[in-house]
Amino acid sequence: MEKLLYGVAYYDEYMPFDRLYEDIRMMQAAGINVVRIGESTWSTMEPQPGVFDTSHLTRVIEAMQAAGISVILGTPTYAIPSWLARAYPEILAVTEKGKELYGRRQNMDITHPAYLFHAERIIRKMMETCAHYANVIGVQLDNETKAYGTSGPNVQQGFVRYLKKKFNNDTDALNKAFGLDYWSNRIDAWEDVPDVRGTINGSFSAEFRRYLRHVAADFLMWQRRIVEPYLREDQFITHNTDLSWAGYSYGLNGEVDVFEDAKATTVLGVDIYHPSRSGLTGMEIAFGGDLTRSAGKGNYLVLETEAQGFPEWMPYEGQLRLQAFSHLAGGAEMVEYWHWHSTHNSFETYWKGLLSQDFGENETYRAAKGIGKEFRELRPHLLGLRKTNRTAILVSNTALTAIDAFPISGYSDPSFRYNDVLMRIYRVLYENNVECDFLFPQNAAERMGDYDLVIIPALYAAPDELLCQICHYAEQGGHVFITYRSGFSDENNRVWPDTQPHRLREICGITYQHFTTPEDVGLQSADTTLEGNAQQFMELLNPCADTETLIRYTHPAYSRYPAATRHSCGKGCATYLGCQPDPAMLSWIIRDTCRNAGVLNSTNTFPIIERGGTNAQGKRILYIFNYSGKAQVAHCPSGMRDLINGCLSAETIPVDPWNFVILEEVL
Amino acid sequence: MEKLLYGVAYYDEYMPFDRLYEDIRMMQAAGINVVRIGESTWSTMEPQPGVFDTSHLTRVIEAMQAAGISVILGTPTYAIPSWLARAYPEILAVTEKGKELYGRRQNMDITHPAYLFHAERIIRKMMETCAHYANVIGVQLDNETKAYGTSGPNVQQGFVRYLKKKFNNDTDALNKAFGLDYWSNRIDAWEDVPDVRGTINGSFSAEFRRYLRHVAADFLMWQRRIVEPYLREDQFITHNTDLSWAGYSYGLNGEVDVFEDAKATTVLGVDIYHPSRSGLTGMEIAFGGDLTRSAGKGNYLVLETEAQGFPEWMPYEGQLRLQAFSHLAGGAEMVEYWHWHSTHNSFETYWKGLLSQDFGENETYRAAKGIGKEFRELRPHLLGLRKTNRTAILVSNTALTAIDAFPISGYSDPSFRYNDVLMRIYRVLYENNVECDFLFPQNAAERMGDYDLVIIPALYAAPDELLCQICHYAEQGGHVFITYRSGFSDENNRVWPDTQPHRLREICGITYQHFTTPEDVGLQSADTTLEGNAQQFMELLNPCADTETLIRYTHPAYSRYPAATRHSCGKGCATYLGCQPDPAMLSWIIRDTCRNAGVLNSTNTFPIIERGGTNAQGKRILYIFNYSGKAQVAHCPSGMRDLINGCLSAETIPVDPWNFVILEEVL
Amino acid sequence: MEKLLYGVAYYDEYMPFDRLYEDIRMMQAAGINVVRIGESTWSTMEPQPGVFDTSHLTRVIEAMQAAGISVILGTPTYAIPSWLARAYPEILAVTEKGKELYGRRQNMDITHPAYLFHAERIIRKMMETCAHYANVIGVQLDNETKAYGTSGPNVQQGFVRYLKKKFNNDTDALNKAFGLDYWSNRIDAWEDVPDVRGTINGSFSAEFRRYLRHVAADFLMWQRRIVEPYLREDQFITHNTDLSWAGYSYGLNGEVDVFEDAKATTVLGVDIYHPSRSGLTGMEIAFGGDLTRSAGKGNYLVLETEAQGFPEWMPYEGQLRLQAFSHLAGGAEMVEYWHWHSTHNSFETYWKGLLSQDFGENETYRAAKGIGKEFRELRPHLLGLRKTNRTAILVSNTALTAIDAFPISGYSDPSFRYNDVLMRIYRVLYENNVECDFLFPQNAAERMGDYDLVIIPALYAAPDELLCQICHYAEQGGHVFITYRSGFSDENNRVWPDTQPHRLREICGITYQHFTTPEDVGLQSADTTLEGNAQQFMELLNPCADTETLIRYTHPAYSRYPAATRHSCGKGCATYLGCQPDPAMLSWIIRDTCRNAGVLNSTNTFPIIERGGTNAQGKRILYIFNYSGKAQVAHCPSGMRDLINGCLSAETIPVDPWNFVILEEVL
Repeated sequence: MEKLLYGVAYYDEYMPFDRLYEDIRMMQAAGINVVRIGESTWSTMEPQPGVFDTSHLTRVIEAMQAAGISVILGTPTYAIPSWLARAYPEILAVTEKGKELYGRRQNMDITHPAYLFHAERIIRKMMETCAHYANVIGVQLDNETKAYGTSGPNVQQGFVRYLKKKFNNDTDALNKAFGLDYWSNRIDAWEDVPDVRGTINGSFSAEFRRYLRHVAADFLMWQRRIVEPYLREDQFITHNTDLSWAGYSYGLNGEVDVFEDAKATTVLGVDIYHPSRSGLTGMEIAFGGDLTRSAGKGNYLVLETEAQGFPEWMPYEGQLRLQAFSHLAGGAEMVEYWHWHSTHNSFETYWKGLLSQDFGENETYRAAKGIGKEFRELRPHLLGLRKTNRTAILVSNTALTAIDAFPISGYSDPSFRYNDVLMRIYRVLYENNVECDFLFPQNAAERMGDYDLVIIPALYAAPDELLCQICHYAEQGGHVFITYRSGFSDENNRVWPDTQPHRLREICGITYQHFTTPEDVGLQSADTTLEGNAQQFMELLNPCADTETLIRYTHPAYSRYPAATRHSCGKGCATYLGCQPDPAMLSWIIRDTCRNAGVLNSTNTFPIIERGGTNAQGKRILYIFNYSGKAQVAHCPSGMRDLINGCLSAETIPVDPWNFVILEEVL
Repeated sequence: MEKLLYGVAYYDEYMPFDRLYEDIRMMQAAGINVVRIGESTWSTMEPQPGVFDTSHLTRVIEAMQAAGISVILGTPTYAIPSWLARAYPEILAVTEKGKELYGRRQNMDITHPAYLFHAERIIRKMMETCAHYANVIGVQLDNETKAYGTSGPNVQQGFVRYLKKKFNNDTDALNKAFGLDYWSNRIDAWEDVPDVRGTINGSFSAEFRRYLRHVAADFLMWQRRIVEPYLREDQFITHNTDLSWAGYSYGLNGEVDVFEDAKATTVLGVDIYHPSRSGLTGMEIAFGGDLTRSAGKGNYLVLETEAQGFPEWMPYEGQLRLQAFSHLAGGAEMVEYWHWHSTHNSFETYWKGLLSQDFGENETYRAAKGIGKEFRELRPHLLGLRKTNRTAILVSNTALTAIDAFPISGYSDPSFRYNDVLMRIYRVLYENNVECDFLFPQNAAERMGDYDLVIIPALYAAPDELLCQICHYAEQGGHVFITYRSGFSDENNRVWPDTQPHRLREICGITYQHFTTPEDVGLQSADTTLEGNAQQFMELLNPCADTETLIRYTHPAYSRYPAATRHSCGKGCATYLGCQPDPAMLSWIIRDTCRNAGVLNSTNTFPIIERGGTNAQGKRILYIFNYSGKAQVAHCPSGMRDLINGCLSAETIPVDPWNFVILEEVL
Repeated sequence: MEKLLYGVAYYDEYMPFDRLYEDIRMMQAAGINVVRIGESTWSTMEPQPGVFDTSHLTRVIEAMQAAGISVILGTPTYAIPSWLARAYPEILAVTEKGKELYGRRQNMDITHPAYLFHAERIIRKMMETCAHYANVIGVQLDNETKAYGTSGPNVQQGFVRYLKKKFNNDTDALNKAFGLDYWSNRIDAWEDVPDVRGTINGSFSAEFRRYLRHVAADFLMWQRRIVEPYLREDQFITHNTDLSWAGYSYGLNGEVDVFEDAKATTVLGVDIYHPSRSGLTGMEIAFGGDLTRSAGKGNYLVLETEAQGFPEWMPYEGQLRLQAFSHLAGGAEMVEYWHWHSTHNSFETYWKGLLSQDFGENETYRAAKGIGKEFRELRPHLLGLRKTNRTAILVSNTALTAIDAFPISGYSDPSFRYNDVLMRIYRVLYENNVECDFLFPQNAAERMGDYDLVIIPALYAAPDELLCQICHYAEQGGHVFITYRSGFSDENNRVWPDTQPHRLREICGITYQHFTTPEDVGLQSADTTLEGNAQQFMELLNPCADTETLIRYTHPAYSRYPAATRHSCGKGCATYLGCQPDPAMLSWIIRDTCRNAGVLNSTNTFPIIERGGTNAQGKRILYIFNYSGKAQVAHCPSGMRDLINGCLSAETIPVDPWNFVILEEVL
């Protein structure tokens, strides 16, 4: 990017009256230098089949151009017009819950040719009329694309074709891989494949979810191929991925393969929504950024984040600014609010933008004005941030999906999931200022060697090759931190029929045959400094002779089994966590492991958060955030320049509530 | 009415053996002077299509006539016979949950001509054979009528015709009013209108709910036109409306427009069910009565209320009598139990009547005997009660429906609704002995001027005219008490695009641009006498210079915004409540407002409740109830005659547990 | 049986590789002497329609035969192959929730001829090829058979035929019995019978549930008639019944009539799953055993129970052995684990068998080895246990079903059900070492006289004859303990129209007309030794002059009504419990009643549990279990031989944590 993009999603279509020029005036005043338009407004662009009118888009683009504001074109395909659903009711997806009704977005069958035909036509019309403008800097493909659980007969036919190919047309191989003899589920003729929606087979259902992730990725690539011919070299192609959702962005999204989706883009985008007020920790911003940066190609775009947002997110003074720079600290080159104004109708009127429905200046808008000014001024220092983290976390959709089918605490409590394991670990890293990247099964072999420490949460299901690569990494000198439920099943969710944990047992120096859910099971760190308890799950580990115990069970029934261990293997080292401990004990073992791997280098801890990297000039940049309502004093390297007040840093630096400093290396 | 009606719903059809004459003997002994019959028993009256037999009705009417007991004929149409559902399955409603199955009542499509044809035929047959009897005093149209969420294709076609008319055949007007550009929901041809059940558009769904309220009101008017030709001048037409339901009668019913429904009647009826035992406060009785009296034409009929009721309602000694007179104190001229005996089969065997299934005399029946005697004796004093209240509450189905779509605390907690705002306010009035009437959007302009204080809870959605009328009322000298979320959107749930609160901001002397849900937000009354906290919602109010702060936020982030204000406007005064406070603080501000408006005149508070009015002789009547299990001493006007013991009152009067006194003015 | 059967369910079909001979070696080492095979593996036996291959079964049978291990053949019919569902989609049941999808077991329409045709064919094929082997000791018919809520049009036609027969083709009788006048539900032509799934009539729905119990029993008898011709005299026919399920086996199963189902067997089987670790009390084992023994013909088979089971069941040291002998102490002659190995795929991978998925020796397997050895050694002493209990509990599916429709605490809290009443009573007996049998409506008249005390929990619905038989039993000298909600309605859930409790009021010396749910209602035992409170329900009892009060209500509103009474009647005595008391008070009154009836004979109480009987040699056998993690000293008869250490018992005996002793009479 040439500038730090500070933007808003802008929907001229939703305006109760013509506001364009007044809006642009207010945008300019706030330093808004980019808008995303078009996304989700198909029915305005094509009010009746084949009747196209994109003049409201070109009017906006031209007005923005005159004002020096860039535009991102969002293809409008994730919400279909009423006439399309009326003409082709079959486009509305059939899912596990039955046939969808028209109304909400994202409930069509994205594989349906009638949908694809009309989607292509409107995309082309948009590109033809809008893409050529000089201020159009890029295109966003669709929005938060998933397959939406589509599973009608046509989709299932596609799935059978996919299975035939995967299993080389051999139903025996399918039966074996998925264990279909169980409960008489065998398939001995392809035409017998049952409706996948009814299955209880955790391999079969997981494969279908994997198929749907392919469907979504293929759809994005299909859109890329449509838009590409219309674009100049300088125009980017992005997509707005979203994370899993727990009322806010939370963890890996099991409905998409973000690593695959990134291939359809030239720069990856993401939306990040997070708790605010006392719940603002910066963790969700950091996580979403780290994941997007790792899945994409480095710097990324925050295509949506909250301004006022939900009523309960209305930020305290200082928080909007803190959030904006938190995104930059992760490597974002764009911070775009959803959305400019607050909609007056329909559904998300409580999901408020920069402006309230009254369009007047307000507290949030005034905060944005300050941010826009700083973005402009600090651009040369903050653009092009590069990170060289020493720690990585290996995440896996296959494992996530497997744990949805085989919950960690069993069917009686399926609420503790893959993302809970992942996010509790991430939180410890985050709070201790250990910055990290993410690895994916697709790039783990190639990239693991770049890191001193690789963390592997609950890798329940994985192909043997991946486990071998992990072993190889450790033997060659890497440090791995592996949790319980890793190496348990192959990539088809078939439990390995040898001693657990499959393949990893040798590097970890442990085996186990039993696992259970804890019933009043205490924990003690081996150095006796900390007591805690096991929570959702525990394995009964048998250590090898040369395996060190890091955490013990204090419950008499389990005192002979270690709860966490460390083991040297080749030139490296493997730490194994055999249970889900309480947060303090989890923090203790992760800090111990990071120290052991040499990646625990900060003396600050949450609420003081350090994030940084190297800027385009090759200078080190260090953000120091205070995520609390109280003034803090942070440790910092001395002799760096404070980019906001221009002073050189001493060994400590005061940071005001919900505020931050940015230090730049003095070369 | 000529007498205080004391009645029961009587179902000869449900009897396990012939009990008629024994039942009548027991009714006479208990002072029961009216029964409601026929309602819900269509299949007995027409066991096969076109086979009519109302002889069991005429037998009951004749036997009642001989015993001097009046009869109300209930048309049987709210539960259809099995043969009708079998012959015309299309009569069973299609709702949001899919196609209804036969079995329960109130799940047919009341717009379906096959239903209407058969309903008319059975109503006419009933009228022909039963209406002419001298002891038939009136007819009840259907029962607890709603549209039952009917939304099959035929209903939706009707809705489209309604929309065409409302928007003068202009789809652009529709799109604009409902904001259908959002998420590509535009409708540019009437044939594209999608199945309303799928919509996420809060204007579209609310309009459909409004349409269904019209459907229900039209259905009642249709029944009235059928029965009217059969009736004498002295026979009334009533309908049994029901309130919203929270396990008991609670708040305004969003499925009906009670003000419109009343037009089909000559006297309005209602069913009121309420908690009992320690939960008996009289509030639900008072609320249901006040609403029905206000929607109807003054005095009203309690067509159903509990005798034994649910197991958990089995009243303590004294409570049945307390309840009966509580109804009279609201202006009821009839108290009718549902039902005489307790059914032996089917579904509501635990919803017990006066008699248990054994038909024997029991505690509840013995209590009724006393009540019947007192009704007869006190009739001349208690009949024809007229109230001239100084306080009114403006209620709105449009606002209620809007808040269902746009919950006060946001989508993450939709449990706090319009009726919760309403009922908490009503409770304060009730507990402080401020009697009130209700106003409706339809009669507010005409009637507001009759009151010293008009209370406006959460009038989220309203046409501009109504807001103007409120302003006009205040400027002309009225006092208004307006809560947060009023004046927020127009009648189509389109948020006003000017400064909030639309139109009301001037009389209230406040504006706001932000609102949020409180996170540990304390409150303090301006006179510093009371501390509390904000609960479900709060607005960040900007007061005008001449606006008085009544409640402050103590949280530092909000200390500059008042939580509640008062402002003089013209000759009047507007109190604005910007958050939902805890009950004690809510009580404080409402009491303060009532005092300010001169309508807080009682020195008694709950559990001592005063209610009264003027009787047919023009004498003031004052009921003083003790809704507690402890003896109380109440303040009272001296020199009134105690109608039960005949004494003249002193300045205080003892009231036994769950007991009351009735005082009559001595002219 | 000739031996104590110690077995496992064995699924060669599910193995990831050929394990048969290694499995057999490990079975032999563990003393496993029987396997159940074939159940649920139809698709392996018939991979395509008409293509049969049972060679994997005969291979297993032959290998087991060579190893001296017996085999039970389980017919595979409770899970259908995918090709069958594909060819005849109509086989998948239509239930209250709609049409079933293929995938899970037990969701087909077991009345459908296409299913029956194919089921018969596969059963015959299995019998033809497998039944003749010498080591095949028996056949299990289907598994955990129910009708699975099947209620498609064909099933409902069958139900109408059943109703016609029951009511002798008289719709008036039907209307009367079920009270169908209510809410216009009358049926005056058989073709008008509505879809039973929609009904709100509690008689109609209960009759359908009864019909489905018949359907299930008929299905088992149909299977018996198929297999019988293939069997030798020495081969048994069993069925694996299951109890109600609350995350573990809990109470009577309302979907089946276990007494009827037993008629299809020569020896009845059951699966019993129970909490473990600190939750292991032995109660569920005892209850399941007592019920199965009573429904069947004495000794019974535990066809499934847990080895490792769910993660949260992973037993503590000693518990697996304690469990195994607990089954024997109830009269089981077989303890079979589900299952040998833990499955590697599909659904129940967390429901672990003796072996984990690694097939290695583990803690659980090692415990089994010890059990197998003791079973072999102690066989002569423990086989053929006969009990002569003096206490019985009368259980009723009709009452259970009625209470599902008419919940004890009313519709607002339907969670407290028949099985809760039953199991709380059973727990008191169990914890006080009062062994009991069960009676059923079918055999109560014949068998009641065998007992000193008959306990009758919540017999809400029963035919008059049964109530008369209870009265007769009491009058002839029996002691009955009857709870609230007994004698309330007839067998069609029509509340009796005379004074409650119908028929029983005379022997109990009480009547009542009112009942309620308690609101802070205290209880006091008549001897003033104990205070407690009423919980889910209470009746307001009117005692006769000669009725003794055992428990009083301390709440002033109810002080005149006793909460529990005792009354002499003829030669016998009836104790009546008019409310659900807290557990301590319930224990008090049941202990008092047992003492009164002379059946409270143990001085041990939980966690020391005594169970016993007479063995095949006519010697008394007494098991003394310690269901706790602490060492206990138990009282015991002196001079009996300890079968484990050979010593003679003194008056007390130490019992280690989770351990037991077995004493045998010395003749």
